[in-house]
Amino acid sequence: MTECTNSRLPDNKQRELITAAYDPQTVRLAGEHMIELLSKHLRVVQDASGPVLHWFEPNENITLAHKQLAAGEIGPPSDVPELLARFDELVKQTLSRGQNLHHPHYVGHQVPASLPLASLFDAVTTMTNQVMAIYEMGPWATAIERAIVNKLGETLGFPAGEFTGLVTSGGSLANLTALLTARNVTLGNSWSRGLTSHSPAPVLVAHAESHYCVTRSAGILGLGTDQVVRVPLDERRRMNVNELDAILTDLRQKNVPIVAVSAAACATPIGAFDPLVDIAEVCQRHDVWLHVDAAHGGAACFSARHRHLVEGLHLADSVVCDAHKMMFMPALCALVFYRNPEHRYAAFQQAAPYLFDPSAPGMAEFDNGVSNLECTKRAAAMGLWGTWSLFGSRLFEALVDTTFDLSQHFYELLTAQDDFEPYCRPECNILVFRHLPVELRDRSPTEIDQYQLQLRRAVIQSGDYYLVQTQLDGRSYLRTTLINPLTQAVHLQGLLENLREQGRQLLSR
Amino acid sequence: MTECTNSRLPDNKQRELITAAYDPQTVRLAGEHMIELLSKHLRVVQDASGPVLHWFEPNENITLAHKQLAAGEIGPPSDVPELLARFDELVKQTLSRGQNLHHPHYVGHQVPASLPLASLFDAVTTMTNQVMAIYEMGPWATAIERAIVNKLGETLGFPAGEFTGLVTSGGSLANLTALLTARNVTLGNSWSRGLTSHSPAPVLVAHAESHYCVTRSAGILGLGTDQVVRVPLDERRRMNVNELDAILTDLRQKNVPIVAVSAAACATPIGAFDPLVDIAEVCQRHDVWLHVDAAHGGAACFSARHRHLVEGLHLADSVVCDAHKMMFMPALCALVFYRNPEHRYAAFQQAAPYLFDPSAPGMAEFDNGVSNLECTKRAAAMGLWGTWSLFGSRLFEALVDTTFDLSQHFYELLTAQDDFEPYCRPECNILVFRHLPVELRDRSPTEIDQYQLQLRRAVIQSGDYYLVQTQLDGRSYLRTTLINPLTQAVHLQGLLENLREQGRQLLSR
Repeated sequence: MTECTNSRLPDNKQRELITAAYDPQTVRLAGEHMIELLSKHLRVVQDASGPVLHWFEPNENITLAHKQLAAGEIGPPSDVPELLARFDELVKQTLSRGQNLHHPHYVGHQVPASLPLASLFDAVTTMTNQVMAIYEMGPWATAIERAIVNKLGETLGFPAGEFTGLVTSGGSLANLTALLTARNVTLGNSWSRGLTSHSPAPVLVAHAESHYCVTRSAGILGLGTDQVVRVPLDERRRMNVNELDAILTDLRQKNVPIVAVSAAACATPIGAFDPLVDIAEVCQRHDVWLHVDAAHGGAACFSARHRHLVEGLHLADSVVCDAHKMMFMPALCALVFYRNPEHRYAAFQQAAPYLFDPSAPGMAEFDNGVSNLECTKRAAAMGLWGTWSLFGSRLFEALVDTTFDLSQHFYELLTAQDDFEPYCRPECNILVFRHLPVELRDRSPTEIDQYQLQLRRAVIQSGDYYLVQTQLDGRSYLRTTLINPLTQAVHLQGLLENLREQGRQLLSR
Repeated sequence: MTECTNSRLPDNKQRELITAAYDPQTVRLAGEHMIELLSKHLRVVQDASGPVLHWFEPNENITLAHKQLAAGEIGPPSDVPELLARFDELVKQTLSRGQNLHHPHYVGHQVPASLPLASLFDAVTTMTNQVMAIYEMGPWATAIERAIVNKLGETLGFPAGEFTGLVTSGGSLANLTALLTARNVTLGNSWSRGLTSHSPAPVLVAHAESHYCVTRSAGILGLGTDQVVRVPLDERRRMNVNELDAILTDLRQKNVPIVAVSAAACATPIGAFDPLVDIAEVCQRHDVWLHVDAAHGGAACFSARHRHLVEGLHLADSVVCDAHKMMFMPALCALVFYRNPEHRYAAFQQAAPYLFDPSAPGMAEFDNGVSNLECTKRAAAMGLWGTWSLFGSRLFEALVDTTFDLSQHFYELLTAQDDFEPYCRPECNILVFRHLPVELRDRSPTEIDQYQLQLRRAVIQSGDYYLVQTQLDGRSYLRTTLINPLTQAVHLQGLLENLREQGRQLLSR
């Protein structure tokens, strides 16, 4: 074992160091600095006064992050002003080298320009370290999670009092938890006995363009990624219901155990929403567990104009919805819902004697550890509870409407250009397109693909805009998610001009 | 689908609501309120001026949390002063109904009185929503994670540059990730083919008192919880190395595939540290993957006086260490280490075309999504990087030394009492004991057990102290974790007096 770089301090110096680190007045001063730096940063970023992403190569950033740790080893701050100066330096460096999601030119991944007030609420439960596993450790954190699960579940369409749910650390873990529940319920004793005695091998039937975490779940859960049966898509890249019916009929005839059908609302590549009512009917007919990954699209339920996209969601046996996507929460706040309240305890089937107290058995109903993969768990719903309590669900409706509407506008803008080609009209706020300047018209498909990728890389490294790419049917496309409500039409007009300009430079080389 | 309680706002009103919610000046004012409320709260709690836990029944808290959501539906704040007043109300309610881990009378679960400055650093990356999956989305978040993984891994004893690691959302997920890697490496094609063709059924060999997440991992990964072989303990409740050797010999003779041996540093019930050097020798001899759950005890490596407890940790194939335990970070910041850098990619074996960009293949080395269960992931190492950069690793040494030393003092205090009986001398800051007043001497073992549980419940619901319970060999005990460095000897003296007083009242009924 290597020696630590510090030599041990005498006991009284250790005590002094701890007292300094926990001093409430220091926390107050540093907190005031933090708020000032953050609010200034938000102003600059929202005004589009700087780059979206100040690009540095990974190794340059890593070297700098190491240097700061090494500086800490030299010695702790000798007084509060020195501590505050150092604090400012570390915060400023962090702000200057990050991704600026609140910049109106951020039109990238399905990660939002989060509601800043949500982070303030989050800081309250983070600083006081309110956690869950058992009710006692986070009584209020438990209560707000229950309230949020109830309200969001009802908004998704589940009948009040007749469903259950939980909050977990991200959409991948949420999908894993729901599919684990499906596996345990569907395959009987797979929790205790494992899968080694299961023959024929069970399958997971999934949307052909499911998020990678769905296929991963099959790998994690011992089913095997080869055991994922991909349902072909219709012309709108939605799950083809007739194909699903045929697949389930065939599997049932062969007595192949079916863990679940995993549908998408929406699928990530182009944001296509599966026809859930029809899929639910097919699943019910074949007696198959229906899981819906509504991580991105679930929040459409808040919108009077868009909730039709997730009609039928409440017919699913399990649903995942990420508040850190279209409810504009900072990461991570993902929710799992079960139509049948009894399934809350089906994922994990154990107890830890030091957690679950036989002297108060009724309390276990409020202990999150029994239904969550996490033992210690953050109060991840705090930001959502706080902002919902402040503004009401109308805020989430406004965020959905604004970003969905802007995507329709962007589609029409693209359609009106000679040199841009949208893949299709968007159903939500995900839009896929290509730039096809006249110089590319006689190039090969491969060259056109490479151009899209190179163009994107040039744009993001310039810091002017941030957008992403995707592959559809083996071809490369540009892809935007309009997930910053501060982005407006003028910024999208600017994006097209920026792509043209960067493209000209690229093609002239 | 139920209707939302609000009717849709006109477009201009939606825009106004969004502008108000994102206004940097409002964020600044609310942030200043938050810091004032939090620093005052910390002062009151650290001074032990109020209860540790202000006890409310779950349904009372849940009803109140619902009421606040309903109040949000009535209408958004009409101006900034109204918003701030409402913000204060929500924050105050949260602070008044939580668990106060910074109270010196908090001596409960393995969840620390976290470093408040860590939460301020965390708020910076939370408000700006710095996330990872790919480097582009969180370049600085990625860099600080890499720097922390390198520094902590070296402190744990891994040779610089010859190991790898990652940060994930909690110890349970960290153990799952490491054991998934062990399963994939050990069982060949289990990721793609699943476990259905594996015969004889593979086993996981584990410390008999492993954290429940280890057994759960066997359930999740398709091995089955029945396939966990529990290694008997020695007289100090550590893994018995001779028994381990015999078990592995027997399994190898029978050609039973062994996914891993899971050791503990330390195990949760009494904080016993396994003899890692000896265990590693046995595992190497039998060619078995050694996993060490050092979630709690890994941080002993920071201490010149205590690092002997985790000697041999660097010989393990995978190690889990929770910074949100003995590095005093707010939840969640858990780390996984692999001795062999190639194992970083063994847990998950896929790509998502819209994440991983063929135009910059070298960049995938810095994309966390390939080695993490999470796709979108918090910048969970920010608080650790910030406080380490401010104070150096000597702060973590001071925290370990202070809380470990206090536990030795508490043990001696208990030993000196007629009516208290410690289970054994603690190795770290977890201490198990019973209260055995003279009135209990002629009671049955069951009655003595019930008394411990009832006594604990009376104490925690009074708000005077917070401690926990555990079961050992079928008997009930009181259990403390001294994980608040502001707790001092005088507070532990007070705990004994409080237990006596509450016990008297209990026995007089």
